[in-house]
Amino acid sequence: MVNYQERLDRTFAALTDPTRRAILARLEHSDSASISELAEPFEIKLPAVMKHLDVLESAGLINRKKSGRTVTVRLRAQPMREAMAWLHRYERFWSTSLDRLTVLAESAEKATRRTER
Amino acid sequence: MVNYQERLDRTFAALTDPTRRAILARLEHSDSASISELAEPFEIKLPAVMKHLDVLESAGLINRKKSGRTVTVRLRAQPMREAMAWLHRYERFWSTSLDRLTVLAESAEKATRRTER
Repeated sequence: MVNYQERLDRTFAALTDPTRRAILARLEHSDSASISELAEPFEIKLPAVMKHLDVLESAGLINRKKSGRTVTVRLRAQPMREAMAWLHRYERFWSTSLDRLTVLAESAEKATRRTER
Repeated sequence: MVNYQERLDRTFAALTDPTRRAILARLEHSDSASISELAEPFEIKLPAVMKHLDVLESAGLINRKKSGRTVTVRLRAQPMREAMAWLHRYERFWSTSLDRLTVLAESAEKATRRTER
């Protein structure tokens, strides 16, 4: 069984490539697509697309199902939930930076008003 | 200048390693730390830790500052904000799955109540 850290490794590794992110974004809009539909917007050849799909599938981010001669690819977003939860703990840092910026902007505004009087 | 896609590439790549994630998690607690403090919990040697810090710094996730003989490492969480925003769009998929589960659980409960009458 793949543990939490290994799942995060695979999810983040799957997301390091812009083509793989574009494939996931495409599936986000249409829920499922055939391999030729997925390959269409890219300039890379079909075997390269297939390799990206292998990485996405081994990270658990897509499912492939064959029916007749068509392979349907479907999004499995669940592993991204864990990745997002991992990132979530850093949220307070950017919230804090935003708070600091707000305080700075407000005190600058007050100072301007004082000099204007 | 590094564009949006390249920034995402680097951020996700920096996050693919459990040691690098542990370094970031350590900095999340203490805001800043010396290199020896950061290296302490790991079984790997100092040069290996330094390599991980290089990756984190080139992804913009940490700052290193030298004062005398001590190098202080500080967290820069901002790039993770973009990564989280990217993941955020898939949230509706797991929310939908949760909604479906809630509906299933509720109808199962209703069915149980009906048979109990």
